[in-house]
Amino acid sequence: MTQNIYDEPAFFDGYSRLPRSVAGLAGAPEWPALRAMLPDLQGLRVLDLGCGFGWFARWARAHGAAHVDAIDVSQRMLERARADTRDERIAYLQADLEQIQLQADGYDFVYSSLVLHYLRDLDRILREVSRALVAGGRFVFSMEHPMFTAPLREQWLSDGELGRGWRIDSYLCEGPRTRDWLAPGVIKQHRSLSTYLNGLVNNGFALAALNEWGPTDAQLAAQPALADERIRPTFMLVSAVRSASSATG
Amino acid sequence: MTQNIYDEPAFFDGYSRLPRSVAGLAGAPEWPALRAMLPDLQGLRVLDLGCGFGWFARWARAHGAAHVDAIDVSQRMLERARADTRDERIAYLQADLEQIQLQADGYDFVYSSLVLHYLRDLDRILREVSRALVAGGRFVFSMEHPMFTAPLREQWLSDGELGRGWRIDSYLCEGPRTRDWLAPGVIKQHRSLSTYLNGLVNNGFALAALNEWGPTDAQLAAQPALADERIRPTFMLVSAVRSASSATG
Repeated sequence: MTQNIYDEPAFFDGYSRLPRSVAGLAGAPEWPALRAMLPDLQGLRVLDLGCGFGWFARWARAHGAAHVDAIDVSQRMLERARADTRDERIAYLQADLEQIQLQADGYDFVYSSLVLHYLRDLDRILREVSRALVAGGRFVFSMEHPMFTAPLREQWLSDGELGRGWRIDSYLCEGPRTRDWLAPGVIKQHRSLSTYLNGLVNNGFALAALNEWGPTDAQLAAQPALADERIRPTFMLVSAVRSASSATG
Repeated sequence: MTQNIYDEPAFFDGYSRLPRSVAGLAGAPEWPALRAMLPDLQGLRVLDLGCGFGWFARWARAHGAAHVDAIDVSQRMLERARADTRDERIAYLQADLEQIQLQADGYDFVYSSLVLHYLRDLDRILREVSRALVAGGRFVFSMEHPMFTAPLREQWLSDGELGRGWRIDSYLCEGPRTRDWLAPGVIKQHRSLSTYLNGLVNNGFALAALNEWGPTDAQLAAQPALADERIRPTFMLVSAVRSASSATG
C-alpha cells in the first residue's frame, strides 16, 4: 500500500492549514489553469482520484456533473469531505489507488490533482483510468513537476551574480524521493516527464495539452513568492483524451 | 534570418572536428535511440531539415528511402555534403528554415537533428512540416533539452555532500540564450518542453514518443563522462505522427 501520510496527525494538521485546504480550489494558484483544461462537465459521469476534502467533487456537481465518484486513501480526509457535502450524487469511497480496479467505460471524465507522483506503479493506474474512460473521454491531472521531484534533496541556490536558481540532479534516476514537507519522511516517486507522457500514449491516450505551470503577471503581483515558479515549475498539468482505438481498450 | 554560425570559420572548424562530424551518425551517442524512433524508410520520400554534412541523408538512402531532400542554411556544410555524396536521389538545398515554404503532402517522413532550438519561430516551422507531411506521416526530431537551454548561463554545481548538480533558472522565461560553444556568442532559443509539445498538438500532430536522452549502461561504461546526462539530459528526442484530421491540413 502507498504511504498514507495524510492520516498521520502532524501531516494532516499541517495539510489542513494550507491555503488550498482552507479556501478550496481558489486557494490553489494553479487552479485557474487546471480549470481551463476541463471539458464542459454538464451531464458527465466524473471520477476524482485523490479527492481529499472533496472540493473538486462539489465544484464538479455545481458545474453540471451528473455524478461524481470521489476516491481517497485517507479516512480523515474523507470524513471531513462527507461532513462538508450534502449531495447524494457524490459518492466518497476509500481505496488505495495502487490497488484500485475501475469499471470499464464507467466514466466520461477523470480528474486527479497532485496524486500521481505518490504512486509507485504509474503504468497500472494509467491502464485503469484508460479502461474506466469511454472513448473520447478526457483525463485531466496535475502532479509535481519532474524538475521539482528530481533532486535527492531540494535546494535553492543563491549567487550574487546569477541570482536565484534550483539545483537539479538525478533527473534520469527514477525512484523514491524523501522529503520533509509538513512532516518528516514524506515519500514521493520521481519519474521523468517522458515516462509520464509515454505512459499515457502507451495506454491509449492522446496528449491534448501540457502546462508546466507558472503564475500570471497578476498572480505574481499579488504573491511575489510565486516568482520561484518561473525559475522552475513545481506543478505540471496534463490533459489527455482516451483514443477511440486502443490496444488496452 | 537565423544566425548562421555554421559558416563562421572558427565555429565551422570546431564543428568539423566533433565526433559526430568525423564519424557521422555513429559518433552521436543519442543516435541509437533516435534511430529506434524511425519508421521503415523503404520507398519513403524523406525531408531532412538541417542536414549538415549529409550523414543522415545518405543513411536514409542506404536504408531504402526513395528520395531525400536535404536542407541546410550553411553553404560550407552543403559543399562538403555534396562532395561526400554520389547519389542522384539526394538533393541538397540551401535555405533558411525560418523562411522556408514546403510543398503540401510532399513527404512521407521528416527528420531534423538538433535544429529546432536555433529557430525563433517554432510555430511556423511546425506548421510547414505539418503541411508537408502526408496524413499518417511521421516527424522525428532531436533538440537540446529545455533543462539544458534554460539557464542564463550554463553552470555545473559541485558540493561535497550532494555531489554533482546542474543549475536551473529562468525555465519559464522563453527567449534567446547566448552560449560560448565552439565559438563565442552562439544564440539558441530557449522554450519550455510544453511549448514544443503543445506546438506539435496544435499543428496537427499526435505525440508518439518522447525520449529525454540518457546513456545506456554500456555507453556509460565506454564513456564515463556521459554520467552527466543522467543528472540532466542535454538532448530530447521526439516522434510525432501527422493526424489524418487537422485544422492545419
